[in-house]
Amino acid sequence: MDHPKGLAGIVVDDTHISSTKNEKLTYAGYLVQEMVQRHATFEEVVFLLWNQRLPNKRELKAFRKDLVSKMVLPAETVRLLLYIAREPQHPMSILRTTTSLLGTTNDVDHDEPPKILAKMLTAIAAIIRLRDDEPFLEADPKLGVADNFLFMMTGKRPDAELSYIFNTVMILHADHEFNASTFTARVVASTMSDYYSCITAAVCALKGPLHGGANERVFDMLTEIIDHDEDPVEFVEQQVAVGRKIMGFGHRIYKHGDPRAAILKGFAEELSKKTGNEKYYDIQLKLADYMLQRDGLHPNVDYYTALIYHCLGLEKETFTLVFAACRTAGWLAHVMEQRGEKTLIRPNSEYVGPTDRNYASDTCMKKVVH
Amino acid sequence: MDHPKGLAGIVVDDTHISSTKNEKLTYAGYLVQEMVQRHATFEEVVFLLWNQRLPNKRELKAFRKDLVSKMVLPAETVRLLLYIAREPQHPMSILRTTTSLLGTTNDVDHDEPPKILAKMLTAIAAIIRLRDDEPFLEADPKLGVADNFLFMMTGKRPDAELSYIFNTVMILHADHEFNASTFTARVVASTMSDYYSCITAAVCALKGPLHGGANERVFDMLTEIIDHDEDPVEFVEQQVAVGRKIMGFGHRIYKHGDPRAAILKGFAEELSKKTGNEKYYDIQLKLADYMLQRDGLHPNVDYYTALIYHCLGLEKETFTLVFAACRTAGWLAHVMEQRGEKTLIRPNSEYVGPTDRNYASDTCMKKVVH
Ligand SMILES: CC(C)(COP(=O)(O)OP(=O)(O)OC[C@H]1O[C@@H](n2cnc3c(N)ncnc32)[C@H](O)[C@@H]1OP(=O)(O)O)[C@@H](O)C(=O)NCCC(=O)NCCS
Ligand SMILES: CC(C)(COP(=O)(O)OP(=O)(O)OC[C@H]1O[C@@H](n2cnc3c(N)ncnc32)[C@H](O)[C@@H]1OP(=O)(O)O)[C@@H](O)C(=O)NCCC(=O)NCCS
Repeated sequence: MDHPKGLAGIVVDDTHISSTKNEKLTYAGYLVQEMVQRHATFEEVVFLLWNQRLPNKRELKAFRKDLVSKMVLPAETVRLLLYIAREPQHPMSILRTTTSLLGTTNDVDHDEPPKILAKMLTAIAAIIRLRDDEPFLEADPKLGVADNFLFMMTGKRPDAELSYIFNTVMILHADHEFNASTFTARVVASTMSDYYSCITAAVCALKGPLHGGANERVFDMLTEIIDHDEDPVEFVEQQVAVGRKIMGFGHRIYKHGDPRAAILKGFAEELSKKTGNEKYYDIQLKLADYMLQRDGLHPNVDYYTALIYHCLGLEKETFTLVFAACRTAGWLAHVMEQRGEKTLIRPNSEYVGPTDRNYASDTCMKKVVH
Repeated sequence: MDHPKGLAGIVVDDTHISSTKNEKLTYAGYLVQEMVQRHATFEEVVFLLWNQRLPNKRELKAFRKDLVSKMVLPAETVRLLLYIAREPQHPMSILRTTTSLLGTTNDVDHDEPPKILAKMLTAIAAIIRLRDDEPFLEADPKLGVADNFLFMMTGKRPDAELSYIFNTVMILHADHEFNASTFTARVVASTMSDYYSCITAAVCALKGPLHGGANERVFDMLTEIIDHDEDPVEFVEQQVAVGRKIMGFGHRIYKHGDPRAAILKGFAEELSKKTGNEKYYDIQLKLADYMLQRDGLHPNVDYYTALIYHCLGLEKETFTLVFAACRTAGWLAHVMEQRGEKTLIRPNSEYVGPTDRNYASDTCMKKVVH
């Protein structure tokens, strides 16, 4: 085959939403680093991704109020969620089913992106609360979207510093042009399927360990190294020897480092110190040094995020849920854009198996010829 | 933009499963027309798609027995299905949720493609039975897979002729290289997500009216023309005038006619006569003549299938479910192939919005600089 593998470098379409050109991440033309340095909030970024312009003060206030007011689940969804979550299963499987279920309540035809995003955040918080055997929490109209989401998951109202960190984490995960789950959502949208089908399919893709599922595996790796008192260098060599990839390293687009990881690293350091989790951070530094020296591979967005989520009190099985919550903002932006194009995404394949086989002579079944 | 729209003509990957080269449909090198002309069975085709060679007699017998024996739903799934199906919703939404649920029962890690296919067929039949308020039916070990599926949906054991027709319909829908839902399944598989996530995502894509959802819309169109005694030519002109596509016509790959439609047309004619549905078939002929003359557009796989399903006694809302049942065979073949490649499918996009925007000066929020 002479086509690039995995569509690497192939431009599928134009977009107005975000860019990773020259390994810089921009949302609608704004450098994400600059936005988070200046304390942008998650809802401001959502508005930007959906409208490709910043909101004014009044718009932002209204947008936040609207989103927070929609952070409730239909009674029917709650009933079903309680029901399906009984079965032992991975939280991402619960989310896959729940996302699909959200799209089957009566008012689904009228669900617009703000409602879909708000329901997704609420459902994800609910899945985590159920897992922890804690009661669901209602959104607090006084808090912003990220703070509410953190509160509804953990039961803790963040202070200003944690609020800044968590808004930033959500912003950094909010969009990333045509990553695998967003691309999945766009392919589904191109058939003119409904919004919830697009988002369900995106959840299916995010679950994979080569994509969003990596953050959970990063934490598995750190735990394994610590629990077995392993040497990070030897750990890497053992994994590579059996053909395994080191989770949280490498990226299809960023070959000189993921700009998100640079910011997240600082938070991982800060929070790990604050919460007595330095041992994880120390291992992360050693692993990162070694991977860079060994293969020129840099940590990606999932690497330090794993430790940040751990420090926030989340269980590792729920890490990818939080990623899904943030990325729903981007998925919806792309689904809206794709729907506007009315063009089916349907590529070609190259058949490379045997040709001109003769069924009549190869089958050993007795066949009537019509 | 100078890239082809919707990945048209872009080769994503090699495949050993099927080909539409030169507008001929072949499965692993066998011309599908020849297979159905010689009465291949659905399970024989599934074996071929999964193994890229025909089964011998013993293998085919064992394969059929294995598939039929697995056509049962876990008690837990039945319980949940009864529960979720209470909510009024489109059957494809129920299937989306059900597929996801099938992947959350305890033994999911051990579900191999035969079990997944058998469960999907059984779940789809169950959704249809539930809708008709009829009890679920158990698979009959004496019948083949297609016959069982038809029996479990409709309660009727097909005679030899109907069995031939339905096996052929299932074969013609079983695979179609990188169509939108299969491509979706492959993108999800490329993240190394689990089988059920891949199949759920494929269902999400198939649901769209530009893809599998077209068969239901074809029947809507026929009904509308008949109910309002409209002239097919005027109907087309009215639709086109408001920018609507005529469902069941056109194809990304087949520009000179869909080879499947040629076969299906004969069945539609035969069954419509047998069941007193000639009026639909007559309209179909008129529409097809006009579309060819008007735009050079040919009917696709969904066009005559809609009428065939109606003649089988199925309700239009369930047509796309039957498509999903057949295509699950192909989806699974492609998921297996994609998983073997261990390469993430992650394309590029071209950002075409404003660049170098300055957040600090454009935001009107008061921001602390960190
Ligand atoms: C993200 C990822 C899928 C990108 O894949 P890609 O663009 O196809 O990258 P490639 O496989 O071409 O990588 C280039 C080389 O680096 C190696 N490599 C990439 N990531 C690696 C990793 N995490 N561990 C070990 N080796 C890695 C590849 O094996 C390849 O080596 P080769 O040229 O000798 O075959 C890949 O880096 C990966 O699997 N990372 C681990 C999972 C992860 O963290 N995912 C989250 C991404 S945000
Ligand atoms: C299947 C389909 C998505 C293929 O799309 P595609 O490869 O992107 O085809 P294009 O849109 O490039 O079609 C070429 C031209 O034919 C027109 N056309 C294609 N299908 C048409 C249809 N069903 N009705 C009216 N016009 C149609 C297009 O508008 C286009 O015209 P233009 O060049 O003046 O813009 C498209 O034919 C379609 O939407 N068909 C109806 C839905 C359907 O039956 N889907 C099931 C497919 S198995």
